[in-house]
Amino acid sequence: MTKNASSPPREHQYVVGIDFGTLSGRAVVARVADGAQLAEAVHTYEHAVLSEALPESLAGTRVPLAPDTALQVPEDYRRVLRRAVPEALAAAGVPADRVVGIGTDFTSCTVLPATADGTPLCEIPGLADRPHAYPKLWKHHAAQPQAHRINEVARERGEAWLSRYGGRISSEWQFAKALQVLEEDPEAYARADRWIEAADWIVWELCGRETRNVSTAGYKGIHQDGAWPSRDYLAALDPGFADFARDKLAHPLAQLGTRAGSLTARAAAWTGLPEGIAVAVGTIDAHVTAAAAQAVAPGQMLAVMGTSTCHIMNSDVPAEVPGMCGVVRDGIVPGLWGYEAGQSGVGDVFAWFVDSAMPGEYAREAERTGVSGHELLSARAAGQPVGAHGLVALDWHSGNRSVLVDHDLSGVIAGLTLATRPEEVYRALVEATAFGARTIVEAFTGAGVPVEEFVVAGGLARNPFVTGVYADVLRRPLSVIDSDQGPALGAAIHAAVAAGAHPDIHAASAAMGGRRADRVMPDPERADAYDRLYAVYTDLHDHFGRGGSDALHRLRRIRNERLASQS
Amino acid sequence: MTKNASSPPREHQYVVGIDFGTLSGRAVVARVADGAQLAEAVHTYEHAVLSEALPESLAGTRVPLAPDTALQVPEDYRRVLRRAVPEALAAAGVPADRVVGIGTDFTSCTVLPATADGTPLCEIPGLADRPHAYPKLWKHHAAQPQAHRINEVARERGEAWLSRYGGRISSEWQFAKALQVLEEDPEAYARADRWIEAADWIVWELCGRETRNVSTAGYKGIHQDGAWPSRDYLAALDPGFADFARDKLAHPLAQLGTRAGSLTARAAAWTGLPEGIAVAVGTIDAHVTAAAAQAVAPGQMLAVMGTSTCHIMNSDVPAEVPGMCGVVRDGIVPGLWGYEAGQSGVGDVFAWFVDSAMPGEYAREAERTGVSGHELLSARAAGQPVGAHGLVALDWHSGNRSVLVDHDLSGVIAGLTLATRPEEVYRALVEATAFGARTIVEAFTGAGVPVEEFVVAGGLARNPFVTGVYADVLRRPLSVIDSDQGPALGAAIHAAVAAGAHPDIHAASAAMGGRRADRVMPDPERADAYDRLYAVYTDLHDHFGRGGSDALHRLRRIRNERLASQS
Repeated sequence: MTKNASSPPREHQYVVGIDFGTLSGRAVVARVADGAQLAEAVHTYEHAVLSEALPESLAGTRVPLAPDTALQVPEDYRRVLRRAVPEALAAAGVPADRVVGIGTDFTSCTVLPATADGTPLCEIPGLADRPHAYPKLWKHHAAQPQAHRINEVARERGEAWLSRYGGRISSEWQFAKALQVLEEDPEAYARADRWIEAADWIVWELCGRETRNVSTAGYKGIHQDGAWPSRDYLAALDPGFADFARDKLAHPLAQLGTRAGSLTARAAAWTGLPEGIAVAVGTIDAHVTAAAAQAVAPGQMLAVMGTSTCHIMNSDVPAEVPGMCGVVRDGIVPGLWGYEAGQSGVGDVFAWFVDSAMPGEYAREAERTGVSGHELLSARAAGQPVGAHGLVALDWHSGNRSVLVDHDLSGVIAGLTLATRPEEVYRALVEATAFGARTIVEAFTGAGVPVEEFVVAGGLARNPFVTGVYADVLRRPLSVIDSDQGPALGAAIHAAVAAGAHPDIHAASAAMGGRRADRVMPDPERADAYDRLYAVYTDLHDHFGRGGSDALHRLRRIRNERLASQS
Repeated sequence: MTKNASSPPREHQYVVGIDFGTLSGRAVVARVADGAQLAEAVHTYEHAVLSEALPESLAGTRVPLAPDTALQVPEDYRRVLRRAVPEALAAAGVPADRVVGIGTDFTSCTVLPATADGTPLCEIPGLADRPHAYPKLWKHHAAQPQAHRINEVARERGEAWLSRYGGRISSEWQFAKALQVLEEDPEAYARADRWIEAADWIVWELCGRETRNVSTAGYKGIHQDGAWPSRDYLAALDPGFADFARDKLAHPLAQLGTRAGSLTARAAAWTGLPEGIAVAVGTIDAHVTAAAAQAVAPGQMLAVMGTSTCHIMNSDVPAEVPGMCGVVRDGIVPGLWGYEAGQSGVGDVFAWFVDSAMPGEYAREAERTGVSGHELLSARAAGQPVGAHGLVALDWHSGNRSVLVDHDLSGVIAGLTLATRPEEVYRALVEATAFGARTIVEAFTGAGVPVEEFVVAGGLARNPFVTGVYADVLRRPLSVIDSDQGPALGAAIHAAVAAGAHPDIHAASAAMGGRRADRVMPDPERADAYDRLYAVYTDLHDHFGRGGSDALHRLRRIRNERLASQS
């Protein structure tokens, strides 16, 4: 590899990685040689998640949003570039000219309509009061009817690509969300020249040219074996949808870790970074974490545990894992088949409980002792023998993205008595997510893609109560990522590869990433007790999720109809 | 009817009724002529309910209690006589010599072991540290294994009386609780000369002689068609149990509203009432409320809605209502077949939610606006269209006493999402109890005992949110008792009959009781929406309660084993 003569030696080279999350963006400055993270800075999105109404300041009037809607504001993303990047750079004390590349990762599928020059539709004069002109956040679940049709028509026509997605396309993904726009706001649909992942849109903002990465195209966009779904198939969904892929998606796809382009003067001014440095191709937050966790070898399952959990694993072979989110060639690192599975609600289920079901007495005790509600509940729950609460929950408060792939499902708690304490319900929710993870591991192993190592990353990987429950439920040791900023470090690793500082993602991961193997060990006695609870979980899971009862679907229909009758 | 020459005219005659509840006893002074309630006084039991440990002050050491145990302390009951009665009398401003009778009612089946002279076993020196020497409160649910055997053996032998109890004897009742004592503390069992309802024990304390009322003997003691279960049957349960009925229960049974005896000098000194006045035969709290609510005619179903709900109805005919608690000749009023059904957790499920699942922010808002947590949650829940919360709950936090008669069941909440608010879960719990009530009404109607009027009493009858939900769910108007002190007034009505001031309970009820017919009207549109939720409730009810899944039983077994492994 030839280096530019003016480059500083690798010990003095740095990269910037930016992780665009659900509620904020985080920039980290990392050293190319060893991945040392010198500084980081966070910028919280001013508009967070729009789920009840569009902001009056943008829309000019109060525009209420339909149930299960989750939108965001693109300018919030740009502010991360303008604020968090200079702040991290200053805090790192690194001269800007030592930075050789910038990489990003994004929640996914977060997707937006844009004009041919990349302008988000909601920023076009006259369109700011249209919900469908805004980016749809990953957890926008209002396109479930469209997802049902996408799957039904695909099954009827025997579309080969369906098995690559565990047999179901999620309502969270590009096609369902786009079809919802077409059906509910045809004008917005018509005016969208491009339907683009936020992961690719932010790269467009940085380097001034459209790129599309192979990963989101595969996992969220139904791009398989070099092709999009056929025009016939799309026309069967809706005649107006026939040219969706050709007109709004199609574009050469770029491999991960490659260079999308060079930082523009405008973006250099925003970020304080040198114009012309390498900008890495866009990636998905969870997937890029695999590089940061040194979990890019076949058989290493990485669970990025945060608001939701994403499971990522490479393999030499493609296989049909029931209910996986997707398997994509080159989807995590070039040259391997990348698998994704996921749980759509994990940390946010715990947060929901703390916010809306923890009594005031607990909140006061937490405040008095200087701990968070989570810590108080974890501490109180930890002392009890496994199963002594008599509870099992289904962790479907945000639907089910794994195995069942059904966002019309909802959460269940069973076994409540008058003696049930808040920490017991909290614990049951933590356990439910661990049972959900075990369901996924068993699905992979059963499909011939054995999980040899379980590596955890994300905010919850730092929670010993949660990781302890997972180790016991999974009956195996957990490895834990070293970095507290996995996605941002992963984006920085991709930036280093894009800048030519490392030959490929494997080498860069080995140099810059890190994990502690077998960090959390299971306890055999607790694991045995969890086996019994897991059997009850599976009973409820299959009853409510696999057609034994349609109770949850009926409740969802009743809810939606009644809410609609009100408005 | 001849009156004692020294009696004052009926306009100046008074009676005292005492209601022994779960946590306190309440005395009311009522006028014989019209039932006017001049004053009342409440005494709270010092030891409340013993469920975790015996009090060290009594047992001399800390004695932990097994799961599902619920005991009480007899001296707490006597203190009601010594404190609440004089206080009510003083507040009424009625001279003691105008009081012609005293009546009582009690929670049931609350039952205790006693010596031949009526001394509670726990008051015998050396026995105060034995849990099984204490009264077992109605909601003591630790005798479920015994109840299972009682039912199994009765079914195997084809015992005719089983159908009088909807096919199942409850773990709450006399035989299951006694069998638990025999098996777990044979010495305490052997030393108990008598196994007596607290309803009869308190009358013993008042008039100095043992009586047994026909009602608790029938509903809680398996006395049917003039006989107890046979010696052979009891021996089949346990050889040591063969003479249980003959030795510890048998006694002439007294009709309701008759005179058990005269107030002793000791009890006169306790209460401040005249020695020698009529003491009415003991009764059950819910049953005696029928007299206070003018709901003693066939077809009037009275729901006494409080901590739990008891459903009471008279009929000219006996019938086999699936899952009813019992049908007993003369069980509510002499001359009719009295039916009982019940829901074991209602108000206490709501209280559990307020205490253990209402966030601090809500508690502060309630305090700021001067309302209770219940009122705040009700107000916030009331505005939403029926079903818009997308939730259905099973109201089995305290097991199921009706239709299913299974105390190893537990509560379920289904349909939770990250948007679910506390007031929505609260509302779902209120609705679940209404669905439970509808299940009971439909069981009666289906068995040929039509419910013609639904009358509500108890603390929740004063809650417009709760009664509104019930009217809509039941699709019928609700009548509401006039008195706020239904059981105590009912006990006073029985006292008036026992004293000869009215010829029978019907006449006394007409004169002294009262209700407002059609007080709460259903809304057809809401009722239609509730029909849909009720269908989902029935789906879950039957799945978890009728053998579709044994998940709740498995959770209970796991819980009990794990708790036992800890101690």
